[in-house]
Amino acid sequence: MIYNQSLALLTDLYQLTMVHGYWKAGLAMRQAVFHINFRRWPFKGGFAIAAGLDTAIQYLQELRFSESDLAYLEGLDLFEKPFLEFLSTFKFACDFDALPEGNLIFPYEPLIRVKGPIWQAQLLESPMLNILNFQTLIATKAARICLAAHPDPVIEFGMRRAQGIDGAISASRAAFIGGCESTSDVIAGKLFGIPIRGTHAHSWIMAFEEEEKAFEVFAKMRPKHCIMLIDTYNSIEGAKKAIKVAQSIPNFELSGVRLDSGDLAKLSIEIRKLLDQAGMQKAHIMASNELDEYLIRDLKQQGAKIDVWGVGTNLVTGKDQPALDGVYKLAAIQNEKGEWIHKIKLSEQTAKVTNPGILQIRRYFDGQFYTADAIYDEILGIQEPATIIDIRDPNRQMEAVGHPTDLLVPIFRAGKLVYSVPSLFESQALAKNELTRLPPNMERFTNPQPYLAGLEKRIYQKKMELIRKVRG
Amino acid sequence: MIYNQSLALLTDLYQLTMVHGYWKAGLAMRQAVFHINFRRWPFKGGFAIAAGLDTAIQYLQELRFSESDLAYLEGLDLFEKPFLEFLSTFKFACDFDALPEGNLIFPYEPLIRVKGPIWQAQLLESPMLNILNFQTLIATKAARICLAAHPDPVIEFGMRRAQGIDGAISASRAAFIGGCESTSDVIAGKLFGIPIRGTHAHSWIMAFEEEEKAFEVFAKMRPKHCIMLIDTYNSIEGAKKAIKVAQSIPNFELSGVRLDSGDLAKLSIEIRKLLDQAGMQKAHIMASNELDEYLIRDLKQQGAKIDVWGVGTNLVTGKDQPALDGVYKLAAIQNEKGEWIHKIKLSEQTAKVTNPGILQIRRYFDGQFYTADAIYDEILGIQEPATIIDIRDPNRQMEAVGHPTDLLVPIFRAGKLVYSVPSLFESQALAKNELTRLPPNMERFTNPQPYLAGLEKRIYQKKMELIRKVRG
Repeated sequence: MIYNQSLALLTDLYQLTMVHGYWKAGLAMRQAVFHINFRRWPFKGGFAIAAGLDTAIQYLQELRFSESDLAYLEGLDLFEKPFLEFLSTFKFACDFDALPEGNLIFPYEPLIRVKGPIWQAQLLESPMLNILNFQTLIATKAARICLAAHPDPVIEFGMRRAQGIDGAISASRAAFIGGCESTSDVIAGKLFGIPIRGTHAHSWIMAFEEEEKAFEVFAKMRPKHCIMLIDTYNSIEGAKKAIKVAQSIPNFELSGVRLDSGDLAKLSIEIRKLLDQAGMQKAHIMASNELDEYLIRDLKQQGAKIDVWGVGTNLVTGKDQPALDGVYKLAAIQNEKGEWIHKIKLSEQTAKVTNPGILQIRRYFDGQFYTADAIYDEILGIQEPATIIDIRDPNRQMEAVGHPTDLLVPIFRAGKLVYSVPSLFESQALAKNELTRLPPNMERFTNPQPYLAGLEKRIYQKKMELIRKVRG
Repeated sequence: MIYNQSLALLTDLYQLTMVHGYWKAGLAMRQAVFHINFRRWPFKGGFAIAAGLDTAIQYLQELRFSESDLAYLEGLDLFEKPFLEFLSTFKFACDFDALPEGNLIFPYEPLIRVKGPIWQAQLLESPMLNILNFQTLIATKAARICLAAHPDPVIEFGMRRAQGIDGAISASRAAFIGGCESTSDVIAGKLFGIPIRGTHAHSWIMAFEEEEKAFEVFAKMRPKHCIMLIDTYNSIEGAKKAIKVAQSIPNFELSGVRLDSGDLAKLSIEIRKLLDQAGMQKAHIMASNELDEYLIRDLKQQGAKIDVWGVGTNLVTGKDQPALDGVYKLAAIQNEKGEWIHKIKLSEQTAKVTNPGILQIRRYFDGQFYTADAIYDEILGIQEPATIIDIRDPNRQMEAVGHPTDLLVPIFRAGKLVYSVPSLFESQALAKNELTRLPPNMERFTNPQPYLAGLEKRIYQKKMELIRKVRG
């Protein structure tokens, strides 16, 4: 993890207040279960791609309260000294199950499940949401953009507009899982082994008196993989100069040109002709400039001759929806006798009602496509064929068909890592394969057919019973 | 800075490629000037608040290529070994001027100005944009939200939905500059001294068998500053229970209640009545739930009895515009004789044409309000009374009136810090004062009257001359 400083205080104050309270009330060691799930389909689409687990694992492995953390807390005059001593003993000891990175995930499904003493499990809420909400959001956005660009590669280069330092680094990581071929972000290359790419900026051209001279020096420096940015003064003239320079250098092959402004459809078509006429059929046309899945789709439809897509701001910030609305909710707690009690939160809004239990996702596969997911409770169990009920529209029900697989896998047991973390390339390959198993009508960017990821009947009924009980 | 690891590779690959090129072409030591400016009014509003400078200063002071950075670069097989040796000598040596945090800033104005050897100045592009774009965006969003909530305090609590770890930490910092009274983010409290606040989550209530019992334990633990979250099951019933518990504890004063769902206007009005009837006129009603400046304004207009606002997601992600479109552009370079040459980039889009020169901002103040800003060139100078020309609408011109102040101040000279960094509280106070100097019609959330921040006539004419020259 890049942050060598203790990140134990990467949390909301109320977590510490509550842990203090559990400790004072003698509840600290009570076993509890929390899950993360989001509620809205991200980008109004039909799927999300899980990401961020490896970052979360590293966070948990390094999580300790440093002396300076404890000194800061003591200075707040909010916590009793014996409690801070208790806090200083923190060493992650929970059971932790999660959906591996690259998997498809849908609203209300548990992305992670934490089971352990409530004082520990409660503390994880803020950092786990911070890490997993963002990376899942960006992996999803990347997958959408890559679907639009398919079969062309997408390069992520959003660092300059990303939301802070880790907004860039984590986004590069998540975008790669979601399908990007590479990044411009050098530190993401160093940390995660992601392939890095780059051309040159307008300043390179402007540092020379003549554009042609700038191209020439650049070409001689980069005999291989040379892509020239041609829109500093005029894109068509820039393309002509790039071609001329390329032809003037013996044994030089122009890899491509990059457009960064103007009508990318029209310009790319004209420039493709110029390149072809010069015998440079292999030279690529790369484009950037506020691209997203919608604009890429439009440009392709309009015959744009772009074959490499550079996507920045709209990818790394998830522009049209810059946050996934994931929540971390208590779903079960043991009573004094050690029995599990289902817990539910009602709230004033139906969408904010939580799902009780110790949840698992069971996904069904018919050999070609996924057919549905059942969210079931390990306390009540599941019986096949399972009946699946849509949470928002209970009239939508189906009996599960296809081969079942349980998706949450053990990551930590009593705080010990029991999971072999796949490489980022494996997670990317998984995401790619996952998307082939989702019917195309569920991958539409707008108004997709919603995949059925609902509650298994037993836990659905238990939930209804709890709601009735609380409402009296 | 929280990142103890070298962040020299927090950059786009092309910066290193270009620096390699400058070095090979014998241009590395050539003096150049770059500025950062954004182009679009953030959130379609009438102002922005500068933020991020202190973070940028810390970045620059620590910037070195570590051995592992150099080893990684060597392994890429893109750079010559002698170049990497040259790179390893990096120690920041530029002149660096900037707008102090908390100042108002407008489109096209230089937020920072870097003057130095081009190989160094070029390298700063990606990290400076990353740090300054984001914090300026969030300070601006915070200022808008605080204007809506005025005179009530706004508490930032967006960590769980922020874009990664630094997306949370930097946002807490910038939101405080923009006017937030406090944050829930404990690490931001530790690092920056920001006041931290917190109540409890729904899980606290759910961990007990009865809501009333949960309130009681909480109240006894927090005899002061006790705010109870009342919407776990039903907000009105929750409020009644909170009042009952508060009354049952001797010498206890309920600080307030928090609403997190439902119709915040209606519920807060009813709950205010309940609190008042119980003699708890001093108890606050705090609200959260997807708030932003528009919703706060609406709720106030509808008579909501909320007097503390908790704002998360929409603040820390700048939801409706999650990125400031700042760019870092070359504006002047010395020729072989050491003369400054103005530089311009045309591009295919007028909005992307850059401003040449060694720029400074002069702001005029009439004793009550700011009247206009002149962006002028230190090479050509400025003569009072200055004529100011709107960049997007050159027919809009005015002669400057009022007391002039130059805003960019020296931060580094030849790499040495010459600036005394103000405290975050001072920057917050500055921002607050700045907003009193902007006419209210320029602070409207939508369709504000645009403040005139234009080019001084000499540099405007020089720019036109350069455009004509490049276009032939």
